[in-house]
Amino acid sequence: MLLGNMMDFPLTLTHFLDRARRYYSHVEIVTKMPSGDMHRYTFGDAYRRICRLSNALTRLGVRQGDRIATLAWNHYQHFELYFGVPCFGAVIHTLNLRVPIHQLAYCINHAEDRVIFVDASLVPMLEAILDQISSVEHFVVINAPRDFQTSLPNAVHYEDLLAAESDEFEFPALDERSAAGLCYTSGTTGNPKGALYSHRSQFIHTIVGGAGDSLSLASTDTVIAVVPMFHANAWNLPYLCALLGFKFVLPGPHLKPYDLAQLIQDEKVTVAAGVPTLWIGMHHEIQQHGFDVSKVRALIVGGAAFPKTWIEAYEKGLGIPVVHAWGMTEMSPMGTSTGTMAARTDLTSDERIELKTHQGYAVPGVEMRIVDDAGEELPWDGASIGEVQVRGPWIIQKYYNDPSGDGQFTEDGWFRTGDVASLDPKGLMTIADRTKDLIKSGGEWISSVALENVIMSHPKVREAAVIAVPNEKWSERPLALVVPKSEEDRPTPNELHDLVASHCSKIWVPDEFRYIGEIPKTSVGKFDKKVLRQRYAEGNL
Amino acid sequence: MLLGNMMDFPLTLTHFLDRARRYYSHVEIVTKMPSGDMHRYTFGDAYRRICRLSNALTRLGVRQGDRIATLAWNHYQHFELYFGVPCFGAVIHTLNLRVPIHQLAYCINHAEDRVIFVDASLVPMLEAILDQISSVEHFVVINAPRDFQTSLPNAVHYEDLLAAESDEFEFPALDERSAAGLCYTSGTTGNPKGALYSHRSQFIHTIVGGAGDSLSLASTDTVIAVVPMFHANAWNLPYLCALLGFKFVLPGPHLKPYDLAQLIQDEKVTVAAGVPTLWIGMHHEIQQHGFDVSKVRALIVGGAAFPKTWIEAYEKGLGIPVVHAWGMTEMSPMGTSTGTMAARTDLTSDERIELKTHQGYAVPGVEMRIVDDAGEELPWDGASIGEVQVRGPWIIQKYYNDPSGDGQFTEDGWFRTGDVASLDPKGLMTIADRTKDLIKSGGEWISSVALENVIMSHPKVREAAVIAVPNEKWSERPLALVVPKSEEDRPTPNELHDLVASHCSKIWVPDEFRYIGEIPKTSVGKFDKKVLRQRYAEGNL
Repeated sequence: MLLGNMMDFPLTLTHFLDRARRYYSHVEIVTKMPSGDMHRYTFGDAYRRICRLSNALTRLGVRQGDRIATLAWNHYQHFELYFGVPCFGAVIHTLNLRVPIHQLAYCINHAEDRVIFVDASLVPMLEAILDQISSVEHFVVINAPRDFQTSLPNAVHYEDLLAAESDEFEFPALDERSAAGLCYTSGTTGNPKGALYSHRSQFIHTIVGGAGDSLSLASTDTVIAVVPMFHANAWNLPYLCALLGFKFVLPGPHLKPYDLAQLIQDEKVTVAAGVPTLWIGMHHEIQQHGFDVSKVRALIVGGAAFPKTWIEAYEKGLGIPVVHAWGMTEMSPMGTSTGTMAARTDLTSDERIELKTHQGYAVPGVEMRIVDDAGEELPWDGASIGEVQVRGPWIIQKYYNDPSGDGQFTEDGWFRTGDVASLDPKGLMTIADRTKDLIKSGGEWISSVALENVIMSHPKVREAAVIAVPNEKWSERPLALVVPKSEEDRPTPNELHDLVASHCSKIWVPDEFRYIGEIPKTSVGKFDKKVLRQRYAEGNL
Repeated sequence: MLLGNMMDFPLTLTHFLDRARRYYSHVEIVTKMPSGDMHRYTFGDAYRRICRLSNALTRLGVRQGDRIATLAWNHYQHFELYFGVPCFGAVIHTLNLRVPIHQLAYCINHAEDRVIFVDASLVPMLEAILDQISSVEHFVVINAPRDFQTSLPNAVHYEDLLAAESDEFEFPALDERSAAGLCYTSGTTGNPKGALYSHRSQFIHTIVGGAGDSLSLASTDTVIAVVPMFHANAWNLPYLCALLGFKFVLPGPHLKPYDLAQLIQDEKVTVAAGVPTLWIGMHHEIQQHGFDVSKVRALIVGGAAFPKTWIEAYEKGLGIPVVHAWGMTEMSPMGTSTGTMAARTDLTSDERIELKTHQGYAVPGVEMRIVDDAGEELPWDGASIGEVQVRGPWIIQKYYNDPSGDGQFTEDGWFRTGDVASLDPKGLMTIADRTKDLIKSGGEWISSVALENVIMSHPKVREAAVIAVPNEKWSERPLALVVPKSEEDRPTPNELHDLVASHCSKIWVPDEFRYIGEIPKTSVGKFDKKVLRQRYAEGNL
């Protein structure tokens, strides 16, 4: 083999850190603190504190490859940890603060975290599982009052830790394949499983992430990360900030729709990234209170499907373009985006909105196929529905120390996403369902997501979830659970029946529409259908 | 070391090819043929021909790693070779059709090319050196009439070669470090030297190249590659076309300013990329003939400095934003760009133009330093001037089979660019000169480029070059060679003297301003000061 003569330059996050220090020292990072006050500083300030943090890790006895956990909201200290830990050579393990407490203990033990950086407000979660976690040697408390009391051993204030150190640090040369980050899936079935990212995967994912066909960000933007920093690298936005030098806004624990709308207005946000539930809630607040969100040029929506009625509400009602994206923790997370394809000048406004109801096109670096139950590849014809399998430089090849997840990988090296979708001839992906949420009725597959989208297009419906319920004759039948916008003025079951019948074949129409007060959500904001199925089985629905 | 658990997915050009086949089969590639006719086809068409080409390489006995040369203008067949050769596993060696004939023979022999794809119009160049080149087994002639006659042995028509093959090909899995392309420097001193690019370097360079901080391209663009495809990968535009799916326009041999302006108008080009000389010539044609270039949203200028007067002429006169970039063959070629930094909304129009007179900021992936003669790093203070040294994933670590170039690399792994520049505190680079063009006068360094820019700011000056001439007292003194816009209305030497004196210290002012008809250019369009110095030495200037 004839090798090229190019430099063996490692693709590491350290390059982004160094780049931001040199070129973006003036860039502003804004945090809404727990108190509601705004904290403002520059990347130059952040860099000096990141150096202090890395010096502190040395003093705490952290070695390269050690897992260092965070249990924290989106704020500047978390931002510092996103760089200080991996550029030191350790692994940042972002704990999900919304998982059940026993799963939190499981993740800490499985990762063998040696240090946990924890928000003062979240300390009770760790105190509750202290007797179950054995690997942790140090707890570092963030945003705590001076007289803060805790039963956590070896607890130290984050600010005290940094104050004792020099603000210069020589970051080590790292192998690009070395581990940089660790994030566990939300684990709706079985134990959470870890995705162990490398510097190389984070580097490439970030470079692609900012480009036109993906999220299309630039140094002129002001970006708010509403997506939690404990969720799939916060879609790599902290690293994109260092790569591109945009102003970065972090909402802290203030995730109420009203608060977010106000923050977006006050900081003149141009790009906002988060899960659908948030934007659905925020739309009402914007209309009700007249917040000025005119600077927003892109609403990036991922983590679950965003129904057409809401895309229209944002695009036509508020003049805010939507970018629909799809991915998962195991994919760092980015898989598809409607990106610039939706900017095609030959599309009408309605065609553009229709396009955005789909999940978009694979971003550069992601290869994709759909396969049937027998593992046979299906055609890209817009009709065939099969499991989505992917491969690429930022997709895991196995779960971290967990052979129980090996079934998620094919023999020829693809990751089985567990999502079921169609691909049209040009590669536009439409998610039909999660494999486990599909309704198998009379030998046919019924997409719960497609049914939900139709039901949610009714103007009086706020949210709807469809689950399979056992049926002797059909094996399974769909049951629709509907949250009306108003209890007083809800649509009749007949209206909903007719609406679905006008869009889908007869066998798809749910036999029953039940009204509930709220759809339970997973820790990352998705409809939790496992809970709904459980409640149905217990007769509690 | 704890390794991440990410897929070992190779970064190869094959991914771009596969991506374009799937997502951009509708994208149009337009060529202005030698006859002046327009050739139009889609990437889908190109893909099938690329498969035929790869099958043909198999039949010709080409093995992985073999060097396959092109001697060709910018056209769709060259575009096919850009993919068919490296994705087959061989190395595309783009021969420079403007180098002296003995250098052409040197490059072919040094690379040991086994096949050469050559434009019919360029066949005489190869016929002239046929007795000097021994490695070539096959000549494939492009765009030749059916009755084409040549003394080249084993010559075959490109179309005949493709017609005999299947339009399906299974592209091999390749190591990302394997060689993909080879390009020789223009060699103004000594023999040309080869930069052997890898798939990995081309992949990363392309991904960064399209992003906002670099060239900022998108699927909605129509891009014309005026920069030759034999020059530093044509700034990777062919690969960017496959990555992003923009419409791609290739001017063939039609590089006269009038023809280019017409092509840009007719094809509704949005982004044009080329060297300064071209745009200087084209500006006159646009004004004279009133070509409609209103769709152009970016003029990408690289390869040499673009004087302020011309930036103003384009930005203010024609409303076309300029992106100033800097790089070199050894850097794939991209090093710096004024990119989105120039889009900063807090800049006035004049500040933006002033910024673009500099070479810009290192793009992501490129690390940079300036050092003095003793090899000591100099501060980024906007005043200190030293040699630019760079490192990054798309920069060579040595020349291809040529230890005579080893002096270009430092012991600690940086490439010595031979350019001399300053860096301001925010990293804005200003090229002062080539090391060898600097004028050392009375112990001071005088920048020939800075002097040229001042002289060219005079409204009656078309071009100006400044060279060092020997001087007993001062060691060297600057001599200015000036091309007036009009012979009848040229500026007086006194006017030029006063202009320079008002901008530079007294010692910088050239002792003499001589008028010449034209500045000789190198094969890639740069001022050829070696020729000027030679002519001066021979008393012919």
